[in-house]
Amino acid sequence: MQRIAARPLTKMAFEPFGDVIETEGLMPRIINKGFARRFTDLCRVDTAEAGGTTGVSIFEASPRVLPIRLDLMERHPLGSQAFVPLSPDPFVVVVGWTGSGDIADLEAFVSNGRQGVCYARGVWHHPLLALVEQRFLVIDRLGSGRNLEESPIASAITVELP
Amino acid sequence: MQRIAARPLTKMAFEPFGDVIETEGLMPRIINKGFARRFTDLCRVDTAEAGGTTGVSIFEASPRVLPIRLDLMERHPLGSQAFVPLSPDPFVVVVGWTGSGDIADLEAFVSNGRQGVCYARGVWHHPLLALVEQRFLVIDRLGSGRNLEESPIASAITVELP
Repeated sequence: MQRIAARPLTKMAFEPFGDVIETEGLMPRIINKGFARRFTDLCRVDTAEAGGTTGVSIFEASPRVLPIRLDLMERHPLGSQAFVPLSPDPFVVVVGWTGSGDIADLEAFVSNGRQGVCYARGVWHHPLLALVEQRFLVIDRLGSGRNLEESPIASAITVELP
Repeated sequence: MQRIAARPLTKMAFEPFGDVIETEGLMPRIINKGFARRFTDLCRVDTAEAGGTTGVSIFEASPRVLPIRLDLMERHPLGSQAFVPLSPDPFVVVVGWTGSGDIADLEAFVSNGRQGVCYARGVWHHPLLALVEQRFLVIDRLGSGRNLEESPIASAITVELP
Protein backbone atom coordinates (compact mmCIF):
# COMPACT_ATOMS: atom_id res chain seq x y z
CA MET A 1 0.00 0.00 0.00
CA GLN A 2 1.36 3.38 -1.01
CA ARG A 3 0.24 6.73 0.32
CA ILE A 4 0.45 10.17 -1.16
CA ALA A 5 0.14 13.18 1.09
CA ALA A 6 -2.37 15.85 0.06
CA ARG A 7 -1.21 19.42 0.48
CA PRO A 8 -3.13 22.68 0.45
CA LEU A 9 -4.10 23.78 -3.04
CA THR A 10 -2.21 26.82 -4.28
CA LYS A 11 -1.99 28.49 -7.67
CA MET A 12 1.74 28.00 -7.81
CA ALA A 13 1.65 24.28 -7.05
CA PHE A 14 -1.28 23.67 -9.40
CA GLU A 15 0.11 25.70 -12.28
CA PRO A 16 1.33 22.72 -14.36
CA PHE A 17 -2.18 21.26 -14.31
CA GLY A 18 -4.43 24.25 -14.89
CA ASP A 19 -5.98 27.06 -12.87
CA VAL A 20 -7.10 27.47 -9.29
CA ILE A 21 -10.37 29.42 -9.37
CA GLU A 22 -10.14 31.68 -6.34
CA THR A 23 -10.14 35.32 -5.36
CA GLU A 24 -7.34 35.07 -2.80
CA GLY A 25 -4.64 37.64 -3.43
CA LEU A 26 -6.48 39.30 -6.33
CA MET A 27 -7.69 42.89 -6.54
CA PRO A 28 -11.33 43.13 -7.57
CA ARG A 29 -13.02 45.76 -9.66
CA ILE A 30 -15.72 47.53 -7.67
CA ILE A 31 -19.05 47.40 -9.51
CA ASN A 32 -22.76 47.88 -8.88
CA LYS A 33 -22.18 51.16 -7.02
CA GLY A 34 -20.11 49.41 -4.41
CA PHE A 35 -22.48 46.50 -3.87
CA ALA A 36 -20.23 44.00 -5.63
CA ARG A 37 -16.60 43.19 -6.29
CA ARG A 38 -15.74 41.50 -9.57
CA PHE A 39 -12.78 39.14 -10.03
CA THR A 40 -12.61 38.56 -13.76
CA ASP A 41 -11.31 35.71 -15.92
CA LEU A 42 -10.16 33.22 -13.30
CA CYS A 43 -9.52 30.27 -15.58
CA ARG A 44 -8.85 29.43 -19.18
CA VAL A 45 -11.94 28.04 -20.89
CA ASP A 46 -10.58 25.87 -23.70
CA THR A 47 -13.54 24.11 -25.27
CA ALA A 48 -13.65 25.08 -28.94
CA GLU A 49 -11.54 22.21 -30.33
CA ALA A 50 -13.29 20.16 -33.02
CA GLY A 51 -16.45 22.24 -32.98
CA GLY A 52 -16.96 22.06 -29.22
CA THR A 53 -18.99 24.57 -27.24
CA THR A 54 -18.92 25.57 -23.59
CA GLY A 55 -21.42 23.82 -21.32
CA VAL A 56 -22.51 24.57 -17.78
CA SER A 57 -23.41 21.54 -15.70
CA ILE A 58 -23.92 20.57 -12.08
CA PHE A 59 -22.29 17.51 -10.53
CA GLU A 60 -23.60 16.15 -7.24
CA ALA A 61 -20.85 14.17 -5.55
CA SER A 62 -21.15 11.62 -2.76
CA PRO A 63 -18.42 11.47 -0.14
CA ARG A 64 -15.60 9.01 -0.51
CA VAL A 65 -14.86 6.48 2.20
CA LEU A 66 -11.72 7.33 4.15
CA PRO A 67 -8.94 6.63 3.59
CA ILE A 68 -9.52 7.59 -0.04
CA ARG A 69 -8.33 4.82 -2.30
CA LEU A 70 -7.42 6.01 -5.79
CA ASP A 71 -9.16 4.20 -8.52
CA LEU A 72 -8.52 5.53 -11.96
CA MET A 73 -7.36 8.66 -13.68
CA GLU A 74 -9.04 10.33 -16.61
CA ARG A 75 -8.41 13.16 -19.03
CA HIS A 76 -10.24 15.14 -21.66
CA PRO A 77 -8.10 15.54 -24.78
CA LEU A 78 -10.50 18.03 -26.40
CA GLY A 79 -11.19 20.50 -23.61
CA SER A 80 -10.61 22.03 -20.22
CA GLN A 81 -12.88 21.14 -17.31
CA ALA A 82 -13.59 23.43 -14.36
CA PHE A 83 -15.10 22.39 -11.02
CA VAL A 84 -16.32 25.03 -8.59
CA PRO A 85 -17.85 23.91 -5.28
CA LEU A 86 -21.33 25.25 -4.54
CA SER A 87 -20.74 24.93 -0.80
CA PRO A 88 -17.55 25.90 0.99
CA ASP A 89 -16.46 22.36 1.89
CA PRO A 90 -12.96 21.05 1.27
CA PHE A 91 -12.49 18.44 -1.44
CA VAL A 92 -9.53 16.52 -2.81
CA VAL A 93 -7.86 16.92 -6.19
CA VAL A 94 -5.41 14.38 -7.61
CA VAL A 95 -3.40 15.11 -10.76
CA GLY A 96 -0.01 14.36 -12.26
CA TRP A 97 -0.50 10.91 -13.70
CA THR A 98 1.33 10.36 -16.92
CA GLY A 99 -0.83 7.50 -18.05
CA SER A 100 2.17 5.20 -17.83
CA GLY A 101 1.10 3.77 -14.51
CA ASP A 102 3.96 5.51 -12.74
CA ILE A 103 2.68 6.92 -9.49
CA ALA A 104 5.86 8.78 -8.58
CA ASP A 105 4.47 11.94 -10.17
CA LEU A 106 0.97 11.83 -8.69
CA GLU A 107 0.09 14.93 -6.70
CA ALA A 108 -2.78 15.39 -4.27
CA PHE A 109 -4.23 18.72 -3.14
CA VAL A 110 -7.03 19.80 -0.82
CA SER A 111 -9.20 22.74 -1.82
CA ASN A 112 -10.24 24.92 1.08
CA GLY A 113 -13.78 24.91 -0.29
CA ARG A 114 -13.52 28.46 -1.62
CA GLN A 115 -11.25 27.28 -4.39
CA GLY A 116 -12.30 25.61 -7.61
CA VAL A 117 -10.01 24.04 -10.15
CA CYS A 118 -9.87 24.05 -13.91
CA TYR A 119 -7.98 21.13 -15.39
CA ALA A 120 -6.24 22.22 -18.55
CA ARG A 121 -7.04 20.27 -21.67
CA GLY A 122 -5.50 16.81 -21.59
CA VAL A 123 -4.42 16.88 -17.93
CA TRP A 124 -4.84 13.58 -16.13
CA HIS A 125 -6.97 13.88 -13.00
CA HIS A 126 -8.88 11.62 -10.66
CA PRO A 127 -12.68 11.84 -10.81
CA LEU A 128 -14.27 14.04 -8.11
CA LEU A 129 -13.14 13.25 -4.57
CA ALA A 130 -15.65 14.86 -2.23
CA LEU A 131 -15.52 14.48 1.54
CA VAL A 132 -19.21 15.35 2.11
CA GLU A 133 -22.27 15.42 -0.12
CA GLN A 134 -21.29 18.34 -2.30
CA ARG A 135 -22.47 20.03 -5.46
CA PHE A 136 -20.14 21.51 -8.06
CA LEU A 137 -20.67 23.80 -10.99
CA VAL A 138 -18.82 22.30 -13.93
CA ILE A 139 -17.76 24.19 -17.04
CA ASP A 140 -16.53 21.91 -19.78
CA ARG A 141 -16.76 21.06 -23.45
CA LEU A 142 -19.92 19.88 -25.13
CA GLY A 143 -19.76 18.36 -28.56
CA SER A 144 -18.94 15.23 -30.47
CA GLY A 145 -15.55 13.54 -30.56
CA ARG A 146 -13.72 11.29 -28.17
CA ASN A 147 -13.12 13.53 -25.15
CA LEU A 148 -12.56 10.96 -22.42
CA GLU A 149 -9.57 8.74 -21.79
CA GLU A 150 -9.33 6.60 -18.69
CA SER A 151 -6.39 4.90 -17.08
CA PRO A 152 -7.00 2.50 -14.18
CA ILE A 153 -4.66 2.63 -11.20
CA ALA A 154 -3.65 -0.95 -10.59
CA SER A 155 -1.65 -0.57 -7.41
CA ALA A 156 -3.19 0.31 -4.05
CA ILE A 157 -2.72 4.01 -3.38
CA THR A 158 -4.45 6.05 -0.72
CA VAL A 159 -4.47 9.78 -0.09
CA GLU A 160 -3.36 11.08 3.28
CA LEU A 161 -5.23 14.22 4.26
CA PRO A 162 -3.37 16.99 6.09
CA MET B 1 -43.82 54.53 -4.02
CA GLN B 2 -44.55 51.43 -6.07
CA ARG B 3 -43.93 47.86 -5.00
CA ILE B 4 -43.41 44.73 -7.00
CA ALA B 5 -43.89 41.35 -5.37
CA ALA B 6 -41.10 38.83 -5.78
CA ARG B 7 -42.20 35.28 -6.46
CA PRO B 8 -40.30 32.01 -6.30
CA LEU B 9 -38.01 31.48 -9.27
CA THR B 10 -39.17 28.77 -11.67
CA LYS B 11 -37.98 27.71 -15.10
CA MET B 12 -41.37 28.36 -16.59
CA ALA B 13 -41.72 31.89 -15.25
CA PHE B 14 -38.13 32.79 -16.12
CA GLU B 15 -38.22 31.32 -19.62
CA PRO B 16 -38.63 34.67 -21.45
CA PHE B 17 -35.46 35.97 -19.78
CA GLY B 18 -33.07 33.04 -19.95
CA ASP B 19 -32.33 29.87 -18.01
CA VAL B 20 -32.68 28.81 -14.40
CA ILE B 21 -29.58 26.79 -13.54
CA GLU B 22 -30.88 24.06 -11.26
CA THR B 23 -31.15 20.29 -11.00
CA GLU B 24 -34.75 20.19 -9.75
CA GLY B 25 -36.89 17.87 -11.83
CA LEU B 26 -34.00 16.69 -14.01
CA MET B 27 -32.67 13.15 -14.34
CA PRO B 28 -28.92 12.96 -13.91
CA ARG B 29 -26.45 10.67 -15.58
CA ILE B 30 -24.68 8.48 -13.02
CA ILE B 31 -20.91 8.81 -13.39
CA ASN B 32 -17.71 8.11 -11.45
CA LYS B 33 -18.85 4.57 -10.56
CA GLY B 34 -21.85 5.92 -8.70
CA PHE B 35 -19.98 8.61 -6.78
CA ALA B 36 -21.45 11.47 -8.80
CA ARG B 37 -24.56 12.49 -10.69
CA ARG B 38 -24.12 14.75 -13.69
CA PHE B 39 -26.76 17.27 -14.85
CA THR B 40 -25.48 18.48 -18.20
CA ASP B 41 -25.93 21.69 -20.19
CA LEU B 42 -28.09 23.74 -17.83
CA CYS B 43 -27.90 27.07 -19.62
CA ARG B 44 -27.15 28.53 -23.00
CA VAL B 45 -23.68 30.09 -23.10
CA ASP B 46 -23.91 32.75 -25.81
CA THR B 47 -20.64 34.65 -25.78
CA ALA B 48 -19.09 34.32 -29.24
CA GLU B 49 -20.59 37.46 -30.81
CA ALA B 50 -18.01 39.90 -32.20
CA GLY B 51 -15.04 37.74 -31.30
CA GLY B 52 -16.05 37.22 -27.68
CA THR B 53 -14.85 34.35 -25.52
CA THR B 54 -16.29 32.73 -22.41
CA GLY B 55 -14.94 33.99 -19.09
CA VAL B 56 -15.28 32.58 -15.59
CA SER B 57 -15.37 35.18 -12.83
CA ILE B 58 -16.35 35.50 -9.18
CA PHE B 59 -18.57 38.31 -7.89
CA GLU B 60 -18.69 39.03 -4.19
CA ALA B 61 -21.95 40.79 -3.37
CA SER B 62 -22.85 42.80 -0.29
CA PRO B 63 -26.39 42.59 1.06
CA ARG B 64 -28.94 45.21 0.04
CA VAL B 65 -30.76 47.24 2.63
CA LEU B 66 -34.40 46.18 3.04
CA PRO B 67 -36.77 47.06 1.56
CA ILE B 68 -34.78 46.71 -1.67
CA ARG B 69 -35.10 49.87 -3.70
CA LEU B 70 -34.53 49.33 -7.41
CA ASP B 71 -31.91 51.52 -8.90
CA LEU B 72 -31.09 50.82 -12.50
CA MET B 73 -31.40 48.09 -15.05
CA GLU B 74 -28.64 46.89 -17.33
CA ARG B 75 -28.19 44.54 -20.23
CA HIS B 76 -25.41 42.98 -22.25
CA PRO B 77 -26.14 43.19 -25.97
CA LEU B 78 -23.20 40.95 -26.93
CA GLY B 79 -23.59 38.02 -24.58
CA SER B 80 -25.37 35.94 -21.99
CA GLN B 81 -24.45 36.23 -18.32
CA ALA B 82 -24.87 33.45 -15.77
CA PHE B 83 -24.82 33.84 -11.98
CA VAL B 84 -24.55 30.77 -9.76
CA PRO B 85 -24.48 31.25 -5.98
CA LEU B 86 -21.51 29.69 -4.18
CA SER B 87 -23.51 29.38 -0.97
CA PRO B 88 -27.13 28.21 -0.75
CA ASP B 89 -28.60 31.59 0.24
CA PRO B 90 -31.64 33.10 -1.45
CA PHE B 91 -31.10 36.16 -3.64
CA VAL B 92 -33.36 38.39 -5.71
CA VAL B 93 -33.58 38.65 -9.49
CA VAL B 94 -35.36 41.49 -11.29
CA VAL B 95 -35.97 41.37 -15.04
CA GLY B 96 -38.52 42.49 -17.59
CA TRP B 97 -37.62 46.10 -18.10
CA THR B 98 -38.07 47.28 -21.63
CA GLY B 99 -35.74 50.23 -21.33
CA SER B 100 -38.66 52.58 -21.92
CA GLY B 101 -39.05 53.39 -18.26
CA ASP B 102 -42.30 51.47 -18.06
CA ILE B 103 -42.31 49.45 -14.87
CA ALA B 104 -45.53 47.57 -15.60
CA ASP B 105 -43.55 44.67 -17.02
CA LEU B 106 -40.90 44.41 -14.30
CA GLU B 107 -40.76 40.98 -12.71
CA ALA B 108 -39.04 39.99 -9.48
CA PHE B 109 -38.03 36.48 -8.44
CA VAL B 110 -36.33 34.91 -5.45
CA SER B 111 -33.82 32.12 -6.02
CA ASN B 112 -33.94 29.42 -3.36
CA GLY B 113 -30.13 29.54 -3.22
CA ARG B 114 -29.71 26.29 -5.12
CA GLN B 115 -30.78 28.02 -8.32
CA GLY B 116 -28.62 30.16 -10.53
CA VAL B 117 -29.79 32.23 -13.46
CA CYS B 118 -28.45 32.88 -16.92
CA TYR B 119 -29.71 36.08 -18.50
CA ALA B 120 -30.05 35.61 -22.23
CA ARG B 121 -28.16 38.06 -24.40
CA GLY B 122 -29.74 41.51 -24.33
CA VAL B 123 -32.15 40.83 -21.46
CA TRP B 124 -32.59 43.76 -19.07
CA HIS B 125 -31.84 42.84 -15.47
CA HIS B 126 -31.06 44.59 -12.22
CA PRO B 127 -27.50 44.28 -10.91
CA LEU B 128 -27.01 41.60 -8.23
CA LEU B 129 -29.46 41.80 -5.33
CA ALA B 130 -28.01 39.72 -2.52
CA LEU B 131 -29.60 39.43 0.91
CA VAL B 132 -26.42 38.35 2.71
CA GLU B 133 -22.72 38.57 1.89
CA GLN B 134 -22.66 36.10 -0.98
CA ARG B 135 -20.29 34.93 -3.67
CA PHE B 136 -21.37 34.01 -7.19
CA LEU B 137 -19.65 32.25 -10.02
CA VAL B 138 -20.27 34.30 -13.15
CA ILE B 139 -19.95 33.00 -16.70
CA ASP B 140 -20.09 35.76 -19.26
CA ARG B 141 -18.49 37.21 -22.35
CA LEU B 142 -14.97 38.55 -22.42
CA GLY B 143 -13.86 40.67 -25.33
CA SER B 144 -13.97 44.10 -26.86
CA GLY B 145 -17.10 45.91 -27.96
CA ARG B 146 -19.79 47.77 -26.10
CA ASN B 147 -21.43 45.08 -24.01
CA LEU B 148 -23.12 47.15 -21.32
CA GLU B 149 -26.20 49.34 -21.52
CA GLU B 150 -27.69 50.93 -18.45
CA SER B 151 -31.10 52.43 -17.83
CA PRO B 152 -31.75 54.24 -14.56
CA ILE B 153 -35.05 53.70 -12.79
CA ALA B 154 -36.35 57.15 -12.01
CA SER B 155 -39.42 56.29 -9.99
CA ALA B 156 -39.30 54.81 -6.51
CA ILE B 157 -39.86 51.07 -6.72
CA THR B 158 -39.24 48.54 -3.99
CA VAL B 159 -39.31 44.75 -4.05
CA GLU B 160 -41.60 42.93 -1.66
CA LEU B 161 -40.14 39.60 -0.60
CA PRO B 162 -42.47 36.61 -0.16
